Amino acid sequence: MFAPAYLDWNATTPLDPVVREAMLPWLEMRYGNASSRHEYGRQARAAIDEARAKVAAAVGAHQTEVIFTSGGSEANNLFIKGAASVQKPGTVAVSAIEHPCVREPARQLRRSGWTLREIAVDGEGRIDADDWRAVLAARPALVSVMAANNETGVLQDIAALAREARSSGAWFHSDAVQALGKVGLDFRALGVHAMTLSAHKIGGPLGAGALVVDKRVELAPLIAGGGQERGLRSGTENVAAIVGFGVACERAVSRRDGEAVRLAALRDRVEAALPAWGAKVFSAGAARLPNTSFFAVEGIDGETLVGKLDRAGFACASGSACSSADPEPSHALLAMGVSPELARGALRVSLGRDTTAEEVERFVATFGRIVGELKNLAAIAV
Amino acid sequence: MFAPAYLDWNATTPLDPVVREAMLPWLEMRYGNASSRHEYGRQARAAIDEARAKVAAAVGAHQTEVIFTSGGSEANNLFIKGAASVQKPGTVAVSAIEHPCVREPARQLRRSGWTLREIAVDGEGRIDADDWRAVLAARPALVSVMAANNETGVLQDIAALAREARSSGAWFHSDAVQALGKVGLDFRALGVHAMTLSAHKIGGPLGAGALVVDKRVELAPLIAGGGQERGLRSGTENVAAIVGFGVACERAVSRRDGEAVRLAALRDRVEAALPAWGAKVFSAGAARLPNTSFFAVEGIDGETLVGKLDRAGFACASGSACSSADPEPSHALLAMGVSPELARGALRVSLGRDTTAEEVERFVATFGRIVGELKNLAAIAV
Repeated sequence: MFAPAYLDWNATTPLDPVVREAMLPWLEMRYGNASSRHEYGRQARAAIDEARAKVAAAVGAHQTEVIFTSGGSEANNLFIKGAASVQKPGTVAVSAIEHPCVREPARQLRRSGWTLREIAVDGEGRIDADDWRAVLAARPALVSVMAANNETGVLQDIAALAREARSSGAWFHSDAVQALGKVGLDFRALGVHAMTLSAHKIGGPLGAGALVVDKRVELAPLIAGGGQERGLRSGTENVAAIVGFGVACERAVSRRDGEAVRLAALRDRVEAALPAWGAKVFSAGAARLPNTSFFAVEGIDGETLVGKLDRAGFACASGSACSSADPEPSHALLAMGVSPELARGALRVSLGRDTTAEEVERFVATFGRIVGELKNLAAIAV
Repeated sequence: MFAPAYLDWNATTPLDPVVREAMLPWLEMRYGNASSRHEYGRQARAAIDEARAKVAAAVGAHQTEVIFTSGGSEANNLFIKGAASVQKPGTVAVSAIEHPCVREPARQLRRSGWTLREIAVDGEGRIDADDWRAVLAARPALVSVMAANNETGVLQDIAALAREARSSGAWFHSDAVQALGKVGLDFRALGVHAMTLSAHKIGGPLGAGALVVDKRVELAPLIAGGGQERGLRSGTENVAAIVGFGVACERAVSRRDGEAVRLAALRDRVEAALPAWGAKVFSAGAARLPNTSFFAVEGIDGETLVGKLDRAGFACASGSACSSADPEPSHALLAMGVSPELARGALRVSLGRDTTAEEVERFVATFGRIVGELKNLAAIAV
């Protein structure tokens, strides 16, 4: 099988072999329903308890604060809709660069009388301080700001935002799906009321995520039924995926600091080569994830680049690969004031555990060759 | 590892080895986000498309009618809440023996102004004809009746119920999680508007289910975001689980008729032995799933039986094992008019692919011995 170099780790990650080994027994001789009161069921329950402790430890939370879900999208929807549905309609404020699985449920709330307020970002993609003050003055009931953006990699000062949001009486949630395993993340130190995590972004499996949530936050379940997960998420637990999530958290945290240094060096190597091709790196002036580079070359289409790189053996993204076919330019870039023309040229390279310096060198050379060809074509066309 | 005989196939099933083989590549070298536009992503998308066609074929639906979810509980919630949230509040009618993941979302609707109407069942657990007429006269907007009950195994005449519900203007949904792979199930022939399926009840993995839904039914998503599954279920698709679901559907359908005959004979062997121990079989007079037997011995507690059978090497259920620790007697039995005392004694034996005649013989002997001991204890205590 032809295996292109995978430079799209923010979209999803290959399963860590150690995680896979931990999961396999749960796809073979271990198969109980964790609610069953026999040997098979008790083993499943014990495995879930162990995984819950691991996930909690990875983010400095208590294990009773971890609500397992099918993934990050569900956890984000659970917070936004679950918290809103037990309150009188008020204002929900989400940053202008949130993932669609925060923005869309916030929009859905408008049908039940809520007011949606988007929080502006500056040209680097950081929460705009003036707009933030204006948002808090409007006394929102719910606020959600992501810890790290999936496209630009920009980090927000979540501890400060959470402190101010709490002071003004809001429940503060942070989508930390992209931050987990890449930068430090401490539920208690950040002071958030709720935080979303996902397994498949950190070498864990698809099908597991969590809402880590302060018990004082009242929530209604999105999926009601058998009463699993303290009544906040019914449905037979996906034991294999939850076990994998726990191990992935352990692995990601233990490797985090070393990987951050290694990947930042590789990312910097990519970015050092870009100016020669006329590429602009987005959010280069902000604190960012170590593994992510988001850039564009004026006059060159991002989709075209992704296609040419794909055929040349490199898997990259033109924008958020978490969402379905969407021909619109990145809403995060537009919110940052980037022109639609330049935003349409955006290419994201996101590195991970298996990324090698050799792959990065080949990528740099191939990117240069392709941009050169496309620029020549454009010149001929004129 | 000590492996008790597994007689709890309605709670969950071991993964079919052929299903596992199909899934493993997606836990190894194949790991794309199906929304990504590179080779990895395209392969994931193609695998999902193939699985969707298999699931659709298993129930005689069109592949565009299959909405993948994380499981049956989510699919049931998606129908009940998703259909309700795009309508003006009206009446939702669900049978008195539905799984909690239908009953609970229906109850949640009351908060938004809906009226909940439970449809009565007769002493055998079949929809009560008189009450059904009364329900339809009240013009419910949404009706949900399960195809096969998880505890008693009772089958409802879904085609007739769906026809009558349609005539009175309702959207008709059926939870077919327990019916799939055990009895014939044809979306078109049944004439339902929507149907819920689950992978892990048919030898597939945990983490995959589907709402099969007529496109004329307007639904709002439970999980909004990236717009996957025609906008009805956002979140990165769990490719391995979906692939496994597709193969499990193929396997379950191809083996269905042969297994139905084989398992019914084993089930009948269990039930032939029960009268000697004073056990009453619930719903024995109704059409039932071939693999399920639900019974009780007056004066003997079901939980005690499950515990003693567990220690003797048999994994059985005292009631619905799909839900979390719930000390209440089976709500299905109470709805059938069974006394709470007898209902507390209920024991469910559900058979499957790996169940052997030898296991059943050992179970019958062990059950008899345990019931004899418990009856002697009771006699001594008196």
